[in-house]
Amino acid sequence: MTGIELTDAQRQEVERQLQIIKRGAAEIIPEDALKQKITRAIVTGKPLKVKLGLDPSAPDIHIGHTVVLQKLRQFQELGHEVQLIIGDFTGRIGDPTGKSETRKQLTEEDVQHNAQTYQTQLSKILDFTKTTFYYNSSWLGELKFDDVLKLAGKVTVARMLERDDFAKRYAANQPIHVHEFFYPLMQGYDSVALETDIELGGTDQTFNILMGRTLQGAYEMKDGQVAILMPLLEGLDGTQKMSKSLKNYIGIDEAANEIFGKTMSIPDSLMLKYYELTTAISSEELQELKERLEADSIHPRDAKMRLAKEYVRMYHGAEAAQEAEQHFITVFQKRALPEDIEEMQISEELLDAGQISIIKLLVAMRLQASNAEARRSIEQGAVKINETKILNIHELFQPQDGDIVQVGKRKFVKIKRV
Amino acid sequence: MTGIELTDAQRQEVERQLQIIKRGAAEIIPEDALKQKITRAIVTGKPLKVKLGLDPSAPDIHIGHTVVLQKLRQFQELGHEVQLIIGDFTGRIGDPTGKSETRKQLTEEDVQHNAQTYQTQLSKILDFTKTTFYYNSSWLGELKFDDVLKLAGKVTVARMLERDDFAKRYAANQPIHVHEFFYPLMQGYDSVALETDIELGGTDQTFNILMGRTLQGAYEMKDGQVAILMPLLEGLDGTQKMSKSLKNYIGIDEAANEIFGKTMSIPDSLMLKYYELTTAISSEELQELKERLEADSIHPRDAKMRLAKEYVRMYHGAEAAQEAEQHFITVFQKRALPEDIEEMQISEELLDAGQISIIKLLVAMRLQASNAEARRSIEQGAVKINETKILNIHELFQPQDGDIVQVGKRKFVKIKRV
Repeated sequence: MTGIELTDAQRQEVERQLQIIKRGAAEIIPEDALKQKITRAIVTGKPLKVKLGLDPSAPDIHIGHTVVLQKLRQFQELGHEVQLIIGDFTGRIGDPTGKSETRKQLTEEDVQHNAQTYQTQLSKILDFTKTTFYYNSSWLGELKFDDVLKLAGKVTVARMLERDDFAKRYAANQPIHVHEFFYPLMQGYDSVALETDIELGGTDQTFNILMGRTLQGAYEMKDGQVAILMPLLEGLDGTQKMSKSLKNYIGIDEAANEIFGKTMSIPDSLMLKYYELTTAISSEELQELKERLEADSIHPRDAKMRLAKEYVRMYHGAEAAQEAEQHFITVFQKRALPEDIEEMQISEELLDAGQISIIKLLVAMRLQASNAEARRSIEQGAVKINETKILNIHELFQPQDGDIVQVGKRKFVKIKRV
Repeated sequence: MTGIELTDAQRQEVERQLQIIKRGAAEIIPEDALKQKITRAIVTGKPLKVKLGLDPSAPDIHIGHTVVLQKLRQFQELGHEVQLIIGDFTGRIGDPTGKSETRKQLTEEDVQHNAQTYQTQLSKILDFTKTTFYYNSSWLGELKFDDVLKLAGKVTVARMLERDDFAKRYAANQPIHVHEFFYPLMQGYDSVALETDIELGGTDQTFNILMGRTLQGAYEMKDGQVAILMPLLEGLDGTQKMSKSLKNYIGIDEAANEIFGKTMSIPDSLMLKYYELTTAISSEELQELKERLEADSIHPRDAKMRLAKEYVRMYHGAEAAQEAEQHFITVFQKRALPEDIEEMQISEELLDAGQISIIKLLVAMRLQASNAEARRSIEQGAVKINETKILNIHELFQPQDGDIVQVGKRKFVKIKRV
């Protein structure tokens, strides 16, 4: 794009798009090429072609997958077009060695069915007026042996063995079958066939996506594709990548209450990452939330409930979100309590006294300094017994072993008989 | 073949065939399978299918190539059938990287032309009633991407990198392009397509031929092919493998005099190897020749002339062989002399005496003990001056500096003026 003078408005638009696209990305390779591509798109009015490959054997999209899907959605909002590749060619082949149980050969019906599921699920995130689905069998299935040899001739064995999993297996004397080299080659060839500008994927896709850029060059396409690599999202366990097989996932097609409940179980430490990568939250809102959490002006559980409600809203609608929140509050109250509540021994005298004033109890348990303070807390709605808010200062209560008394967001005690 | 009782005649025939086939072979893998295959062929009357792959880019057959061709001929004489594969599929592809000048892409016309040349040349060695030509494009060219993946899935990368040249290049960080893995795979697949029993090749083909055995197993064929690996023949230089590019070869289509002359230039030490591997000499004749050479009862040059004449006879016929021999004797006499002929100083007196009796000269030079002995040698045709046989005992001769006087097969002296 050298020699072309941009207007100020165009220059600003380039910067705006860059900022949105770069947000949350782990790596962009090469970054200057991204800027050139965006500039060209703005100058020519020709949208960029942004590709994502889909595994045809796993059509159940979970929140981990939505990291790249949200990024695609952002591209669409900036006017660009999305290429979704259903890897049916790869999937129809299965495992040519026949040794692995995990990669079953898919029938044409399986692939059709899975593609349908994808469309239903993805329509919740993507703008389908700017999305085109492709089956890679339509070009890969047509290649003959000599085309395949030409493809294989573009890359060296040493380069292939640099791929992380290949390198590890080769070093450990674990078999790598020759056809496995073709998985990255096929994915790369898809970008040649579709003249892709940008390919998205998780950081674990770095090798495969850069292969697309290499192959485009080898097939003499100018301006090879740019790799936008998104972070991998840890699952509910907080450590391992979210995946169906590890059962640490939140599926976008799961029931509203499931989505809500699972979201509530993610570690607090991951909440902001989930917000940033898997919702449409703006940078400003994200920053504000972060500050409030740091300042303790919002309870993490409440922030998480907002996230859970947002997921249900995204994938089941606003009404379902409202209902799921209510359901959670009603049914999972106890589970939502901290697990390490301090126990407080209470004299038998008090326990056997029958119903007593809650104000008196709060003071006796040293949760409040005085009757006046206890009364004020109740009036502010800050006092709960067994998760039920106490609003009447005159309410009587018969304490029992195991009852939980709460004041404010943080003070919990469990009654224990001496 | 367990459980089948062979007649004595059959058992003898198995042993006879085994002996012929094993003669000169560097290695047979696995040897017990060869015996089983021969036994089966004898019991069922169904000939073995013996394969040789031909490089379509190099149709000029030389004596080095005839090592395997002679072995094929022996199989034919034992009643078996030969499969000759013209590797036109490989040849049409050329070098997919486009980087190597040496492997040019062959056109269909090139391949046709080369195949024609092969047929003409091979008809001089093989029995064409028991030979079938195949073009491997007829099956390889039909494979589609998924077939290719199935093929590639049969073998591991580690196994491929065991191939000698791959191992060396990988260790030296020299590029190996992924398509190169397909050369052995294609060659192996030919054996699957043709249900080959035995594949022949030089010892440098061990990896590729064993790949055929592996692939037959992977494609669930019983009784994988047997590899018969023949020694590589050193060329005229006596050290490097005979090859066109090294210009150390004897082409079977070369002019008769060329074949004769080049054969005369091979080192004596290789002569028996040439006899054994590239002529139809019987084991008994070979043994006799070996003994005569050891006992000095035949001059190596004469044995070599027999070899040269045999080559011309094989490739140009008996008449041409006779002519080539004569031509060699006439024109190359001087060259045929040993290079380290002893010089003998002769008195000026003798040199300046003008023409003298040859008998007198022989005695004066101490080549003979007496006039009588000298006369007898002349009568037996054992005396030559400057390679011309002296038959007249009364012949006169004017000795000059540099003249060569020879008595018998071994005594040479060069006249040198003091």
